[in-house]
Amino acid sequence: MNLMLLKSDSIENNVAKVSGRQLEHLTQVQRLTEGDFLNLGEINGTMGRGKITMLTDEQASISLELGVQPPRALPITIILALPRPKMLRRILQTIAAMGVKNIYLINSSRVEKSFWQTPFLRPESIEEQLILGLEQAKDTILPSVHLRKLFKPFVEDELTGIVGKSRAIIAHPGAEKPCPINLDSQVTLAIGPEGGFIPYEVEKLLSVGFDSIHLGPRILRVETAVPALLSRLFPA
Amino acid sequence: MNLMLLKSDSIENNVAKVSGRQLEHLTQVQRLTEGDFLNLGEINGTMGRGKITMLTDEQASISLELGVQPPRALPITIILALPRPKMLRRILQTIAAMGVKNIYLINSSRVEKSFWQTPFLRPESIEEQLILGLEQAKDTILPSVHLRKLFKPFVEDELTGIVGKSRAIIAHPGAEKPCPINLDSQVTLAIGPEGGFIPYEVEKLLSVGFDSIHLGPRILRVETAVPALLSRLFPA
Repeated sequence: MNLMLLKSDSIENNVAKVSGRQLEHLTQVQRLTEGDFLNLGEINGTMGRGKITMLTDEQASISLELGVQPPRALPITIILALPRPKMLRRILQTIAAMGVKNIYLINSSRVEKSFWQTPFLRPESIEEQLILGLEQAKDTILPSVHLRKLFKPFVEDELTGIVGKSRAIIAHPGAEKPCPINLDSQVTLAIGPEGGFIPYEVEKLLSVGFDSIHLGPRILRVETAVPALLSRLFPA
Repeated sequence: MNLMLLKSDSIENNVAKVSGRQLEHLTQVQRLTEGDFLNLGEINGTMGRGKITMLTDEQASISLELGVQPPRALPITIILALPRPKMLRRILQTIAAMGVKNIYLINSSRVEKSFWQTPFLRPESIEEQLILGLEQAKDTILPSVHLRKLFKPFVEDELTGIVGKSRAIIAHPGAEKPCPINLDSQVTLAIGPEGGFIPYEVEKLLSVGFDSIHLGPRILRVETAVPALLSRLFPA
């Protein structure tokens, strides 16, 4: 954790009250005590630092000096075939850490039905992973994660509106064109499941304006492909 | 697994004998049977396909048609501060999958001493992770992994020889220059532990010709930074 993220309701008059996981991190991992400073941010707000003014076993009071804007978001919407639960958690962290603010988790023929039953898709579980990613990267803006359990109506009824005027690409091993680099436009990026989108799904995505691109001859796991794609698509 | 990798000693006269984990994968995950084909490669050799000619509960015989060269290696040597054991395994997989063939795992002030005790550093455990990465990416060439438990003698006595005429860079959040892109030269890339190299270590690396670069304002976990760096440094 490089930045502790606070919920708005824990802040009053520029003083934060911290308990639970965050208090434990503060005392056990960071080993801070009264008078110490730490990096802090308000979820969906600004960042800065705070001074611990009071510390008990149950709660810390922290006097805040916020006001620093979080880093710029990436101009991208990710359309991701729902990964297996364990990988889902890491990918949510990675996506949040890298500055993505809009994610659609969608169904695909190669997504196992059981993946939709995982408790890791509960809103509080998704938020937990996103916050871990933001705390790692030093950002405050929570990404929006949308679940779409039906591929066809999503593509036919909703995707055109999401794509808008953005550059729409599918990462697909074996595509002819390489992944573009250092784009300055808005991007919509579709990433298939392990094993890839099936041909019908690729056709549907092409039909609403997507273009297939590759990352080289190697087949990468989704959790490796995501940072590799984001890193090529936008300037550092 | 997109390619099953075979050890040379399991191949004789273009026929492979497969048992254990690989036999299980073949029958349980891929659900193959006699007469079926699968993608195969020989460790440090060529790739191609094989036909299952005999299948029992203990062993499969596979008739091989190899001869396809594996994909080009990345022209890079990675110098990586030893990550925590769980992350180490994933990073070894990622590095192998992305085509890195030379890795030095080194000590650094922020590497916990206990990390050097993990069984995941045993040669057979390292090889297992590397093979998983190669089988994912469809490659056959095993990377070389070198362990260096002392930072100073490594940098002073060995690193200059490793760097040679390559472009030597340290990935360091807060550096002034951004990560270069689409290089066609040989690269030596140093990556610190969580929390980064300490200033003394950065100084030592700069003194043997390294240059600091950043990946943007966000602080990424090592397992995210590695694919992000490799993806920017070299063309897709």
